[in-house]
Amino acid sequence: MTIIKENITNELVPENYENFYDFYEDNYPADVAEFLSTLSEEVLLENIVNLSPAVLSEIIIFFDEDLQKEITTKISTFKLAEILSNMYNDDAADLLGVLRVGKIKEVLKLMKENKALELKELLEYDDESAGGRMTTEFIAFYADNSVSTVLNKIKDLMIEPEMIYYIYVISRKKELLGVLSVRQLLTAHRNEKLNDIMNKNVVKVDVNLDQEEVAKILSKYNLLAVPVINKHKQLVGIITVDDILDIIEEETTEDLFKMSGATSTYDIHGNFMEAVKKRIPWLFILLFGGLLSGSVIGRFEESLQSIAALAIFIPVLMDMGGNVGTQSLTIVVRGLATDELEVKHFFKHLFNEFKAGIVMALLIGGSLLLITFFWHNNIAIAFVVGFSMVTTMVTAVILGTSIPFIVDYFGVDPAVAAGPFITTLIDISGLFIYFTLATLLLERLT
Amino acid sequence: MTIIKENITNELVPENYENFYDFYEDNYPADVAEFLSTLSEEVLLENIVNLSPAVLSEIIIFFDEDLQKEITTKISTFKLAEILSNMYNDDAADLLGVLRVGKIKEVLKLMKENKALELKELLEYDDESAGGRMTTEFIAFYADNSVSTVLNKIKDLMIEPEMIYYIYVISRKKELLGVLSVRQLLTAHRNEKLNDIMNKNVVKVDVNLDQEEVAKILSKYNLLAVPVINKHKQLVGIITVDDILDIIEEETTEDLFKMSGATSTYDIHGNFMEAVKKRIPWLFILLFGGLLSGSVIGRFEESLQSIAALAIFIPVLMDMGGNVGTQSLTIVVRGLATDELEVKHFFKHLFNEFKAGIVMALLIGGSLLLITFFWHNNIAIAFVVGFSMVTTMVTAVILGTSIPFIVDYFGVDPAVAAGPFITTLIDISGLFIYFTLATLLLERLT
Repeated sequence: MTIIKENITNELVPENYENFYDFYEDNYPADVAEFLSTLSEEVLLENIVNLSPAVLSEIIIFFDEDLQKEITTKISTFKLAEILSNMYNDDAADLLGVLRVGKIKEVLKLMKENKALELKELLEYDDESAGGRMTTEFIAFYADNSVSTVLNKIKDLMIEPEMIYYIYVISRKKELLGVLSVRQLLTAHRNEKLNDIMNKNVVKVDVNLDQEEVAKILSKYNLLAVPVINKHKQLVGIITVDDILDIIEEETTEDLFKMSGATSTYDIHGNFMEAVKKRIPWLFILLFGGLLSGSVIGRFEESLQSIAALAIFIPVLMDMGGNVGTQSLTIVVRGLATDELEVKHFFKHLFNEFKAGIVMALLIGGSLLLITFFWHNNIAIAFVVGFSMVTTMVTAVILGTSIPFIVDYFGVDPAVAAGPFITTLIDISGLFIYFTLATLLLERLT
Repeated sequence: MTIIKENITNELVPENYENFYDFYEDNYPADVAEFLSTLSEEVLLENIVNLSPAVLSEIIIFFDEDLQKEITTKISTFKLAEILSNMYNDDAADLLGVLRVGKIKEVLKLMKENKALELKELLEYDDESAGGRMTTEFIAFYADNSVSTVLNKIKDLMIEPEMIYYIYVISRKKELLGVLSVRQLLTAHRNEKLNDIMNKNVVKVDVNLDQEEVAKILSKYNLLAVPVINKHKQLVGIITVDDILDIIEEETTEDLFKMSGATSTYDIHGNFMEAVKKRIPWLFILLFGGLLSGSVIGRFEESLQSIAALAIFIPVLMDMGGNVGTQSLTIVVRGLATDELEVKHFFKHLFNEFKAGIVMALLIGGSLLLITFFWHNNIAIAFVVGFSMVTTMVTAVILGTSIPFIVDYFGVDPAVAAGPFITTLIDISGLFIYFTLATLLLERLT
């Protein structure tokens, strides 16, 4: 199959195998890469340069970017060109993306002109657009080809995608006209023209469409691949469903990181200062938010001085408001991300959340009232605490539901507005209600 | 194509179309269903019974469960059997799942024995297992078949899956032996036996495997479909990648709901009491957590009485601790879900987070110290607040990182342990440090 040089140490081979070649033959590239990733970086880098380009081209895509960078600096430009030539264009473009600009040019010069040109074009698209995600390896035939011609050509093609997703039908100007499944081709009469048997209603995406939208389209129509067209309606690539799985994973991680108050995703195995940089901005905003909430308490210092016990209920009010608000918020952010919620649902959903909020607030507020009464033996303080809890929770539900809708309406990612911001708003309103009520009823409380 | 009865009112047709038939012909079933979903339920239910079984079988899977339930009660058992006969078995089993048990039996009696039997079997598997997700429509041939036999058979099969994912090779006892791609079949010599050209190293899943694990396997090996085998190693079904997209969406939503403190997912368009039921348990736990945090403050009532201003810094300490802890937690929960983090990474990741935590705590704590000093003109109070912030944040990072790892180690879903629990722990430790320090330095503070 592929030639593997002899000078691979035993460290690159799991215990139950005699040599790397047997190990490689018996296992999927993803598993081989997984085993190699468990080795120390030193051992790995020392040995990996001895693997053949064919083997490397199969496993390198499974390593993370940092490791890819390390490996590519250990490998000659010539070998790198050979590795890239063995890879699908979308994977090759991704690997090229980790190299220095100077090195990219060197490597492309050593490759076949055709492939180098395609890769150069792919590198120009935005990483997170359809163009940045697509591969240029697809099967397309002209509309006036006959079924038998196509079947014969497919058989003859040797450097072909392993899996034939769909067969695209194009005009002589490369405009996308239709699509066929392999089954349609196999079951059609041999003399028919593609034009007569193709489906003309093709789901397609523009080369500049955001990857998240591409994922939604594939998912909605249950497609295995979607064709990508440029502004001249020409077919320039396809995006396959396995890339969509990666996109969905990336986008979900990004949403989660943003919701917890990081500005964007970062490599969790990377340098810790990267984490600090991504997380500190929101923390500073929250610092001022927290001080603002505190200044609400400051306004009521006199009340606190006469009844210090009031402070005891600050945590429970803040926790419950924050949590119930986060629940409402999470539901909207997720609903908007999966298209289960849209702007038109706003009032209906808000009303539903409002009703749920009232019930939950009465249950929790009522319990708190009873607990406080038996704990502190003071009906007035129990009333103040219980009533504050009800209003805080209802406010929290309303804010948690409305704000992501509003933010989304103005075209901002609702995941960003989440957590920190809303927490501060809820804290301020909750504490204000609590201390105002307490101050009004001060005489009865003491 | 399909016969559509004439008595469909114009309400079921978008403005730019003359009749439903044209509309249906021009658009994808997902789009037709999307349009129908925008209509009032009344209009929809009144008209949908008049659509032909062929049309209904294509669009009904795109409606949500509640609407499916409503529709199925309006349709005769006979028509329902016809609709189900037109559907893929996995979709048909899902639709049967919304019916009453009695009605399921009635409908199955009206269907072909073969199909009814397959559906009955599918209904027995756990909804979230490989068996509950698989379809029984796949292409499998015996290992001693020749390539030309297989190619001819594929051409003759009429009730065949639209897309041929892979061709599976089985023994006479139906044991899974190998797999072939369509391309391998098309490029092989006609006289060869499948046994000689197939890949014997097949990625497969057990019928009882959890759907989340199935999704990870398809994603890891970039497969379009994975075969499902029973305990006798017999091929019983396949799970295709479009179902995997649905699984990933479901599982992510479930994780998010759990992280925000709901016991499980629920229908956000459904009855609001459902939301209350799913969200109230954690809220009650949090209520006691909040009261516990408050009781820490209660222990220091005397200190508060002498300096009421101490209460001003409760919100900022709680907010910052909660937020930085949630950041650490989210990273671990997501990392464990995507397999980017594993138990073996625990100490390395904890150390990394610890370093990031120290830097962030010093930056925020230092800023708070300065702000407090200039605000209150008291170096002792500034020191207490600043130092408490540093220790609270570092504690938060350690707890937020460790707890999900520990919970995961004991086989519990780390998303559950999230938010509420950790928040309470962080609050208690933070408030305790703050008030202890303040009490110790009380003389200097006043």
